[in-house]
Order: sequence, then C-alpha cells, then structure tokens
Amino acid sequence: MANIAKKVSWSSRGDDRGERAPLLNGAEDGKHNSRQSSGGAMFHIGRLSAVDLEEDITHEEDIVRSRPKEIPHNEKLLSLKYESLDYDNSENQLFLEEERRMSYMGFRCLEIRRWVICGLIGFLTGLIACMIDIAVEELAGYKYSAVKQNIEQFTEFGGLSISLILWAVLNSAFVMVGAIPVAFFEPVAAGSGIPQIKCYLNGVKIPCVVRLKTLAIKVFGVICSVAGGLAVGKEGPMIHSGAVVAAGVSQGRSTSLKKDFKIFEYFRRDTEKRDFVSAGAAAGVSAAFGAPVGGVLFSLEEGASFWNQMLTWRIFFASMISSFTLNFFLSIYHGKPGELSSPGLINFGRFDSDSVQYNLYEIPLFIIMGALGGVLGALFNIINYWLTIFRIRYVHRPCLQVMEAMLVAAVTATVSFAMIYFSNDCQPLGQDNTEEYTLQLFCADGEYNSMATAFFNTPERSVRSLFHNPPGSYNPLTLGVFTLVYFVLAVWTYGLTVSAGVFIPSLLIGAAWGRLFGIFLSTITSSQSIWADPGKYALIGAAAQLGGIVRMTLSLTVIMVEATGNVTYGFPIMLVLMTAKIVGDYFIEGLYDIHIKLQSVPFLHWDAPPTSHWLTAREVMSSQVTCFNRVERVGRIVDVLSNTSTNHNGFPVVVHTTENDEPGKICGLILRSQLIVLLKHKVFVERASSRLSQRKLQLKDFRDAYPRFPPIQSIHVSQDERECMMDLTEFMNPTPYTVPQETSLPRVFKLFRALGLRHLVVVDDENRVVGLVTRKDLARYHLGKDGLEELQLAQT
Amino acid sequence: MANIAKKVSWSSRGDDRGERAPLLNGAEDGKHNSRQSSGGAMFHIGRLSAVDLEEDITHEEDIVRSRPKEIPHNEKLLSLKYESLDYDNSENQLFLEEERRMSYMGFRCLEIRRWVICGLIGFLTGLIACMIDIAVEELAGYKYSAVKQNIEQFTEFGGLSISLILWAVLNSAFVMVGAIPVAFFEPVAAGSGIPQIKCYLNGVKIPCVVRLKTLAIKVFGVICSVAGGLAVGKEGPMIHSGAVVAAGVSQGRSTSLKKDFKIFEYFRRDTEKRDFVSAGAAAGVSAAFGAPVGGVLFSLEEGASFWNQMLTWRIFFASMISSFTLNFFLSIYHGKPGELSSPGLINFGRFDSDSVQYNLYEIPLFIIMGALGGVLGALFNIINYWLTIFRIRYVHRPCLQVMEAMLVAAVTATVSFAMIYFSNDCQPLGQDNTEEYTLQLFCADGEYNSMATAFFNTPERSVRSLFHNPPGSYNPLTLGVFTLVYFVLAVWTYGLTVSAGVFIPSLLIGAAWGRLFGIFLSTITSSQSIWADPGKYALIGAAAQLGGIVRMTLSLTVIMVEATGNVTYGFPIMLVLMTAKIVGDYFIEGLYDIHIKLQSVPFLHWDAPPTSHWLTAREVMSSQVTCFNRVERVGRIVDVLSNTSTNHNGFPVVVHTTENDEPGKICGLILRSQLIVLLKHKVFVERASSRLSQRKLQLKDFRDAYPRFPPIQSIHVSQDERECMMDLTEFMNPTPYTVPQETSLPRVFKLFRALGLRHLVVVDDENRVVGLVTRKDLARYHLGKDGLEELQLAQT
Repeated sequence: MANIAKKVSWSSRGDDRGERAPLLNGAEDGKHNSRQSSGGAMFHIGRLSAVDLEEDITHEEDIVRSRPKEIPHNEKLLSLKYESLDYDNSENQLFLEEERRMSYMGFRCLEIRRWVICGLIGFLTGLIACMIDIAVEELAGYKYSAVKQNIEQFTEFGGLSISLILWAVLNSAFVMVGAIPVAFFEPVAAGSGIPQIKCYLNGVKIPCVVRLKTLAIKVFGVICSVAGGLAVGKEGPMIHSGAVVAAGVSQGRSTSLKKDFKIFEYFRRDTEKRDFVSAGAAAGVSAAFGAPVGGVLFSLEEGASFWNQMLTWRIFFASMISSFTLNFFLSIYHGKPGELSSPGLINFGRFDSDSVQYNLYEIPLFIIMGALGGVLGALFNIINYWLTIFRIRYVHRPCLQVMEAMLVAAVTATVSFAMIYFSNDCQPLGQDNTEEYTLQLFCADGEYNSMATAFFNTPERSVRSLFHNPPGSYNPLTLGVFTLVYFVLAVWTYGLTVSAGVFIPSLLIGAAWGRLFGIFLSTITSSQSIWADPGKYALIGAAAQLGGIVRMTLSLTVIMVEATGNVTYGFPIMLVLMTAKIVGDYFIEGLYDIHIKLQSVPFLHWDAPPTSHWLTAREVMSSQVTCFNRVERVGRIVDVLSNTSTNHNGFPVVVHTTENDEPGKICGLILRSQLIVLLKHKVFVERASSRLSQRKLQLKDFRDAYPRFPPIQSIHVSQDERECMMDLTEFMNPTPYTVPQETSLPRVFKLFRALGLRHLVVVDDENRVVGLVTRKDLARYHLGKDGLEELQLAQT
Repeated sequence: MANIAKKVSWSSRGDDRGERAPLLNGAEDGKHNSRQSSGGAMFHIGRLSAVDLEEDITHEEDIVRSRPKEIPHNEKLLSLKYESLDYDNSENQLFLEEERRMSYMGFRCLEIRRWVICGLIGFLTGLIACMIDIAVEELAGYKYSAVKQNIEQFTEFGGLSISLILWAVLNSAFVMVGAIPVAFFEPVAAGSGIPQIKCYLNGVKIPCVVRLKTLAIKVFGVICSVAGGLAVGKEGPMIHSGAVVAAGVSQGRSTSLKKDFKIFEYFRRDTEKRDFVSAGAAAGVSAAFGAPVGGVLFSLEEGASFWNQMLTWRIFFASMISSFTLNFFLSIYHGKPGELSSPGLINFGRFDSDSVQYNLYEIPLFIIMGALGGVLGALFNIINYWLTIFRIRYVHRPCLQVMEAMLVAAVTATVSFAMIYFSNDCQPLGQDNTEEYTLQLFCADGEYNSMATAFFNTPERSVRSLFHNPPGSYNPLTLGVFTLVYFVLAVWTYGLTVSAGVFIPSLLIGAAWGRLFGIFLSTITSSQSIWADPGKYALIGAAAQLGGIVRMTLSLTVIMVEATGNVTYGFPIMLVLMTAKIVGDYFIEGLYDIHIKLQSVPFLHWDAPPTSHWLTAREVMSSQVTCFNRVERVGRIVDVLSNTSTNHNGFPVVVHTTENDEPGKICGLILRSQLIVLLKHKVFVERASSRLSQRKLQLKDFRDAYPRFPPIQSIHVSQDERECMMDLTEFMNPTPYTVPQETSLPRVFKLFRALGLRHLVVVDDENRVVGLVTRKDLARYHLGKDGLEELQLAQT
C-alpha cells in the first residue's frame, strides 16, 4: 500500500535526482513505538503503513488487511519524505561578514534587483497565460468547427453517430497527448497545482514542484485537457506556472536546462526563494482571473506567516504586471491593440452598474444560496475524496491513468452529445449573439439549441453565457439536467492525471443552478422587478459553489469581485462565501486540504490546536538528537551523515559532548547541507596551514550548491582524512532559536510558524540540548472529531 | 522645551489617571551617558531635552538654547513616556490551567464570541459614521442655506461684506465649539488619529487613545470642523473612531463611563484587544470609503506583524458589516430604504465602464502625474513639518490652539468668499445638476458661479463635482487658483487642534490639478477622443496627490479602486501611487510618519535597518536588569516597584540572585502589573496556611485590573508584611523568549517584531540574565541619511 501511495504521490519518480531526500532530524524509527504511549489516539491503519515498510507484518495487522472494505485512511498519516524549507537565515560568520561588508547602497541595489525580478515574474507569467489562452482558443476553435461542420452535415442525412465518434475521438486524442507526459514524466504536474503551491508556501519542499520541466509539462497538459473538452479550467494551473517562473527567474538558473546564468546569486536561499514564489503565485492568480489584489491576498492567505510591507508591495507589483501583460498581448491577439479589456484568462463579462443592483430583501436568498453551495460543495468533495482513495488503490500505473483520462474525455463527449441530441430547448438567435459555436441541430432556422451553448463550448464561454444571456435564454429543465451532468463529470475529472483546474467547472455548476434559482424566483414573483435578472443569481450561485468546494475566504471574495469588475457585489459575495464555508466545513474540509491530507504532507495550520496547551516541548520534541562538537572529527561527521536510518538534517553544535550521548551546552546549529559543502571543500583544521595558499571558503560556495546539495555518498573521504578535525565555528549558526522544555505547544508552534523555522532546539535550564522540534513534530497534532489527535509518521 | 513638547503631545493631560505610566525596564538614567560612547551620532538637542527635565542646564546647553533659529529636532529623540503593548501571552500556571480546563466547545464559544464582537464593532462603527454624515449634512446644509440666502439678498443691493462676516463668524463658531473640547480635555482626539492608531497597532500604548471620552470628543469635533468649512475631511477620524469602538466593545466595559458589563472578560489582555482594534480600524476605513477590502489591507499594512487567516476573515467581516450598516441607514436617511448605493462617507460617484477606459499611451502621462503628485505631496509635508515644529514651540496653550483654529476657519471663509467674488467663471445650470448649493452671484440667470462649486460646498461634494462634471464645467484659471489656495489652506489646517482628516483635502487638491492637466491635454490634442474626459485625470491626480502625502501603498490602491466602484483603474492607480511614493520618499517621509517622529514615538518598522548586522544583542540591550528571586521578600518588591528612577516594567525571575547583582539563571519573567495584583491581594507565603479559607488567586483578578493596574503607591504594605515572602512561581511566565548575547540586531528585531514582544531577555551561555531588550532599544536604531543613526532617549 505504501508503495501504491508512492506511485500516485506528488513527488516525481525522483531517481534522476542526485540526492536522496534527507529526512529531518527527529525521524528515528524507534520513535513509532515510543510515541504509542505518549497519549493521542492510535490508528491501526497508520501503523500498518509504517510497519508495511519494515516488512514485519504481525497477526493483528493481517486482520486489518484482510478487511478489503476498509479504506486506508492515508490522511491519518504524516509522511516523512517531505523536507522543510528554512525561512530562517543561518546567520553564521560568513553571512554576517558579507552583510557587514555591504554598504547601504548595496542593500538598495538588492532591493532594486528584487523589484526587477518581480517585474520579470509578472511579465513571464502573463506571457504564459497569454500563450495558453491563445493555444486553447485556436485548438478548441478548430475542434468545434470540425465537429460542428460534421454535425451539420449529418443532421439532415441522419448518421449523427459518426459525429459523436468524431467528437469523442478528438477529445480523447487531445487528452491522451496531454496526459502522457504528466503520467509518465512528471506526476507533480497533475491537477491544478494549488495544493502543491499551498504546501510550498507553507514551508514544505515538494520535490520538483518548481522545476522548469514541470512548467513545460503543465502548460502543455493544460492546453490539451481544456482543448480536449474535459470539465476543467485553465486557471488553477496558472498559479503553479507563476510559482515555477518565480523560482526559476529569482534563482537565475535552471536545473532542467542545466544552465546557470550567474545572476541573482544573492537570492539563492530558501528565504528569498519562498518570497519570490509567493509573488509568482500571486502573478498566476492575477493572470488567471484578472485579479491583482486577489492574487496578493491569495499568496498571503496561503503562504505568508510574517507580513512584510515591502514584500507585499512587490507581490502586488508582480500581480499587476502579469495582468497587464496578459491584457496587452490579448488585445493584440484580438486585433484591438491597446484596448485593455481582458485582464484575466476568465472574463466574467461586463456587469453594468444598473443591472447589478441588489436589494436588501434579497440578502436572505443569497444566504440560502450560500448554504446550498456549501452542501453541494461538500458533496463534491466527499465524492471526490472516495474517488481519490479509489485511484490511490487501483489506478496507480501511468498507462492506467492515461486510459482513465481518455475514458473521461470520451464519456464527456458522449454525454454532451446525448444531452444536446435529446434536448428540444430551441432559442431564437439574438442580434448580439455572443455564442461562437451555436448549433442549430433539429431547431428551426434562426434558432439554436440552448443545451449546446452550455456543452458545445469552452467552459469559460459557458459561464459567461450563463451570467449575461438575457432572461429566457435557458429552459429550466436544460439547466437542471446540465447541472446534474456537469457536476458528475467535474467530480470525476478532478484528480485525473491531467493538469487542469477546478475553478471553472465549479463556477459553471454554480452558475447553472444559480440561474435556475433565479428563474424559479422570477416565476413565483410575477412582477418584472429586480428579481427578473437570472444572471445575478447565476453569479451568486457560482460564488457559492466555488466557495463550497475550495473554501477560500477573503482572497476568493476579492477575486470574484475583481473578475466581475464591479464592487457592488462585494457584500453578497462575502456573505455567500462565508455561509458556504461554514456549512461545508460542517461536513468535510475543502478540496485542496483533502488532497494535501491524502498526500500526508506535514502542513502547518495557522495556530496550534486550541486544546493543545497540555502538551509541552518535552512531549513534542524528538529526543536523541545527534550533536557535534565545535571541533569535530571528520570520520564522525561522515558516519552520521551516511547513516540512512536517521537521515538527520540539522545538528546542534555543543561545547563538550561526551561519547555516551550526554549532550553538552548548545553553541550553534549546523545543517547537513553546510556540512556537505565543508566536506566537499575539505575544510579541515589540519589543512589550515596549507590553506594559506588555498582560497577561503565563501558564502558563494554554499549558494552554488543550493538547492540540490550533493549526497554524502558522492563525496570521497580517505581514511587519513577521516582522522582530521573540522572546525565548525565559522559555519554554524551561533544563535539558533531555542525554547525551554516546559514551553507549551501553542507557544512553540507560534515561534516556529511566525519565523518559518526548520529546526527549533529544546534546551534544559543549563542550556544543554535535550531535543529538537521540527515541522513533523508540530504537524502531527491536529484537531479531530474527538479532540486532539496525533498522526502517525510513515516513510511513505 | 520638554515641557512644551508635553503640552502638545498626543497624551492627554493625564493627571486624572489613576496611575503614572510606568516606564519600561531598561530606562535607566545612567544609560544616556553610557550610550554616548557606544557609537552612533550624537544630538545635542536630544541631550538637552533629557537634561531639561533634570533641571541641570549646563553651559553648553545654554548656548544651544540661546540660538533661537535652531529648530528642535524632536524627531531625533525617542520618548520614554510611551509604554508598549504585550502581544505575547504570559503563559503562567494560572493561564495554562485555565486553557487546559477549557474544552473544545469552550474554544468554539470563544470563537463565536469573537465573531459577535466583530459584528458589533462593524455595526457601531457604521452607525457612528452614519451619525457623523447626517450631522454634517444637516449643519452644513443649514449654514450654506443661510449664507446663500444672505448673499442672494445682498448681491443686488451691494453690501456683500455682511455676507462675508456672517460666513466667517459661522465658520469660526463651529470650529470653536469643536476645538474647545479637543484642546482642553482630550488633545489625543486632535487630527485624524491615524498616526495614533498606527502606533497602537504597532504595539505602542498611546495613553487614552482608545477611551470612550476620546471617541465622543472626536465625533463631536469632526462634525464641527467639517461643518465649520475647514479644509478637512471626516474620513480619517472614522478610523480612530472604529478603533475606540473596538476597544470598548471587546473589553465589555468603559473607563470613561465607569461601567463594567462583565462580558467578554476573556478578551481583557493586550493580545486580544489589539486584534479587535485592528478590526475596528478596518471597519473605520470601510465606513469612511466604502472599502471593506481596503480596510482589511489598511489594518494589515499598519498593524499586523503576524498574519492569521481567521483574524483576517473576522476583520473583513467587521469591515463589511460596517459598510453595510452605513449604507443601510443612509439609504433610509435619503428616503430610499433598501437601495444600497452609498457604502462610504465619501462617494466618488459612479464611474461607468464606458467612460473609464484608458489606453496604453496614457500610461506615461499617468506616471508623470504620479511624479507630480509625489513632488507636491513632499512640498505639503515639508511645509506642514515646519509648521508643526512652529506649533510645538509657540502654540502650545489650549486657548492659543483654539484661537488658531478659529483664525484658520475665518481665513478659509474669507479666502473662499474672495475667490468666488472675484471669479467670473459662469457656467450654465445643467439639467442633471448635482450641486446642491449653487451660487448665482453676478452670473446671468440660468448660470452659476463655477468657483462656488469648489468652495461653497463640503469638500466631498467638490471632489465628486471635479470627477464627474462634464468637460467644460471648469475654467482652467479657476482650477489653477483653486489648487493653489486650497493647498495652502489644507497645509495650514492639518495639525490644528481640531479632529479632522487629511484625505479629502488631498483628494480635492489632486482632483483640481488633475482636472487642469486633463483640460490641458484635451486642448493640445484637438480630437474628441479618449483624452476628452478630464474627470479621469481628476481621479488620477487625486490618487497622486493623496499618495504623495500619506505614502500608503497597497491599501490605498484598493481603497481608491473600491471608492470608484470600478476595477478598471486598478493598474493606473497603482502606478501612480508607486511613482508618487518613490518620488516623495526622495524628499521627505509620509505625513503620518513625520507626525509620529515628531512625537518621538518608539515605532518599530518592518525590518531592522539593513546595515545593522554589526550590532548584537549585547550592544543593544539594557544591562543592569533588576531581577527577582523565585521566592522574593515583599519589601524588596515594593522598593523596586516604588523606585521612580527606574520604573521597570518586566522583571526576569532568576534561581539565585546574590545581593551584589550577580544575576542568576533565568527561570521566568514577571510583569509589574502582575506583581501589583499580587501585592494587592497579599499573596504571601506566610499567609498560605490561612489562605486555605481564602480563595485562590485567579486569572480573573488580573483581568479585572486590566488595563489600568493601580499604582504601587496606592497599595499599603505594613512593616510586618514587608518581611513576608512572595512565591512568584505560579504567576511568572516560566518560558519567556530569550536570545544569546551574540544574536545580531536584525535577528533580535525579527523575533521581537514577529511575536509582538514587550520584553526579550538576553542570556549568556549559562542561561544567566545579562540584559533585557525592549521596544526602545530596537526603535533607537534607524537609517538616516549618513547610514545608521541612533536616537536619543528622553523623558519628554
């Protein structure tokens, strides 16, 4: 099972990487047993998974395994395979020397460079969005024209089944082309990428998530899946794309291209990179929805723990540039250069101030719609949750995944065709007809099939039609059937091994039932009053459905408001999103959180669980910390680093440690990555005399190795060298953050989260190291239905 | 001089308070001398100020004083009179016991209560805004009707000087009535209150800033000053009002009313209170500008160091409710109940999507306007800076302040009258005339005086006219003269002892020269193209001017966008604000920052100065910390607390301290306020046996005393009791945050700022207390023109 989970997990096949992901200090195997007695609920399935790897299946677990109906509760596990980002600078002597050497002008230059990078991030993200948009338009245009031509040809003669086959084959072909690279080369490019970016901004290093290769596959994949007619949107992947662009630009090099431009070297550390990735994610949101402020808020809501005004302003700059770039190039593409009217990929169309007025007595209706959205969203999430577990268990081979995607594409085409075929909802063609691909089918001349506006179109266009088509454009039955069918298709589609987002399908489902709701209202109230506009209810329904699925709050409100281009709806949208979140949270979490949990990512929430005050650092920390002396024998360092069973990543440096593991007073903290660079450059005390000729190790040497430090196995240390000594004083962080053992969990959590730490040393009142707190030690505790729960750690 | 500074300072006269503001630990007088040798620039004026109080004027300072041309550089001082808020909970045993006793449901109830409070805050803030708006409308309506009637009466007969006198007297009377309570009873209610709220959210406790009395005087004052025709707005004070409402509601009691409602007792601590005040400030912004998202961003930009999703969402809720309440009640007032069309006090009017299009080639023009706004804003700030210093030196008596305000009011009326009188810019009355008080004066019938639309009106209406009146409504000369005159009036007005804001005057100045710019453009380009709309340039000019003065960034962009009700202008407004900020910062800081500096507030910026890596905790900290033993003699505690020369506020508790001040190992931190409560309840070890009958001290006892703990002088301790012992174990915070001495200043700063600390203990490697870092120790270092500067501490 663990193996299966690995197959479908976000991390790439990973064998091409030069290193094995080192685990955090505090991942001792012995811990599983010690933890079992430390309070907290026990989960057999969790233990099973851990034991599974140890190939030591006891009778008890056999029983568990023999119950095939039992779904593996992967969300009760916490994977040990994810590393943490370090938002805290290692302020060692090299670092301090560099910072002290730098003049005020130097810092100004750095600041300017940061702005330039943000501008670039925005520009490139906008370009990518533009490219995706144009490619989708062209491909979808070609596809729909071909199918339309075919349908028109066969409508009179009969033999529409050929049209159906053509449509289904075209869809499947597109989807296959898009799914193959994702399934075979970069599984992390699947889906919208939002859960992955959420994790990254939270401080979890998801392997390969910000690689150029991922970006290429993602962009290609999303074009294919949208053109392939799946019930997906191209908006979610933009956020991931922006993040990759940001990581690439800010580091001035690409691992995928094996190219180092030797620029922006100062920014080669987790702190800076994460800030830029925030900007990239914001630029992505901004390009996707034309919502620069919404993008900033998205980044802050998901990522920032420490708010910094300059950073926020830079993020906003990137967002603005991104939206502007997209707008500018799309205006050229649409043949009206300079007319900046499409700031985002999705365009809700213009809501004029006159038509958007709402009245006080409509507010209870909006709240009801919010609740409905919450229920429907929860239903969506529950079904998708079971489906995802099914996929984890049974659909884990790449070829199976591609086949499933093709199947969904073919079914989507078939169902759409059937819907259109059996629909007899004909509407007269208006003068200002916004539909590009109207189907006449069996309608009279001058009329078009109303179901086809919803199905025979890219989802973005369908949403816009639902918002803006005049009252009476849709038959209630059409809308009802469409809602139902599209709901099922969307649930099935999310989680396929294609890169695509869930925003647009959610909006579409919501807009459909929202419009239905509006039509219903205007039926029961005869007057041609403010009720009469079903487009308004479509918008509210779209917000409710989307809110019910993703459960974003402030940022989503702002995104929706910016996408409509009118602030009038701010208040109702907020009410609706809030209601949807409250109602939805009663049943199940948001879709992204479900997928994060199913991947067992050690995700840190905003606060420690409120009822965790009875836990202290002593109970939470990993004890048996491996410490080094200030001047340590090379052999011991190599041995510790090579020990695959512990795979520690941060090592407290102590004044005097005796061999019997009685730890000494803390005087610093050194990281695995730093030790590896030191070993590679053979910075040994015995060589100090000969080093006079040799150049001194600089911060640059550490930056060059970032972020993929070579594995310890690749460094050869001779037997003589093993007896040398290494002086860590200059390289360790001499002032790591520490807490006393009695500190309560919420207090530890706050310090850890606010500063974005990776290691927090726990000391006794003599300043002796007694433990180390890492991300997993904190993420383990979460609030379940029966109070505080403790997740199991597993090597999955 | 110090005395003078005190007179005009934000703090109230303060003698009625039950306590003397205790100073922070680390304010030893001996420090001034030791600091002089610790590097950093020296400021004679600074020392003078400190010495002044000590009544020990040396010859050298006499010389300084004898130079009257020398302006006292108050901004180079750091006042010791401001206390700090403690955003860190004191996690002592009582606290932990309470938290551990609480069930999950208990925490849910708390959360619900927080939401209720935020709803209440929003509702009450909206109500207050509504009240202010209606009162101003009515009073101004009455005033302008009276004057208009008078003018019309005298236009034909001659003798308009009587109208002038009537106008001037009415203005002065209003302003006098508004200024007297401010000047005599609550100086902290003067101005917009935004600098004070910025400081509060930054963690500085400004005395009386969130008192009900302040609110009452503020609301009354702002009504009078706007009705009195000063060049002020009613928007800024709303932010302060919202904050007071929040502080009042969340604490469930009022000191001014001497009433305790015994509700929300859990929230009686700095952490919770500050969160609610953020919500209140946001609600204020929201009500002022109809900008709920802008309000949230304002609060975050100014206040939050630690971003919390739930908190942000609550703040947003308060903002929305506030805007909605205002909207609802104003719709009733305007006779159209339920038509929600005025979400804020200032209403920019409707910018329709058609008229607001801008084109690519206009962007350079926008940037030029931004730069212009930056220059003009800097000019505004420089003049106001000198004026404020003049006021600090010479206009410090309340009666003088009231007289100055009256003078300004009379001059405003006179100048306005003269402008209108000498203007011959007559415009035809339109059909859809939005001006309420049109003056015909010497114009032909069916025409009105165009200058009067700008001057004979509340500034809000004038702004709207400039945005929306059709091209040709204003003569360029009218606009030019108006800009100049209003600029001078606005500069003079800001800083008067009346409660009023600077937002609207700034917008008005900017709108005037922006419109002028637009007219100029449409003159040089003949075509009736997109250039032709001067209202658009008025909007951009308004943004540029406001940005140049206040230098807010992200939040101001959003506020402007929300106030216009149209997101189209997001990108140009951002560009303009950014340019204005960059250009303006080249000359001088933002207006609020100037006023904060002139008050010598220990304000912490986002980061430590970049060039401060060479400083460590050892240099920054205050040494000679007074420590207590875990079990301490009552007499010593009383003596330490009574020592007015030190006035420490936080005391590390150590294991063994010998009398020769060799500090022991740290085991906790106790606050002055806690000790005072302990002394008041006589929690002595000797009484422990008899305490069996006595009830145990609870957290409630500490909360009841919050935030105004009685002064030590009011607690009587008999000679016998002085020999008793007090066990601090249960009450101290056993896990205060500590840093080693070698920690660099940026690292200390980050920890301090991110967690909102009040005391940070510096320890040596044996965990012995060697110093204490407080807000002043960090705020002292700032980046001046010649690199890092150190401010002087002073008792002003």
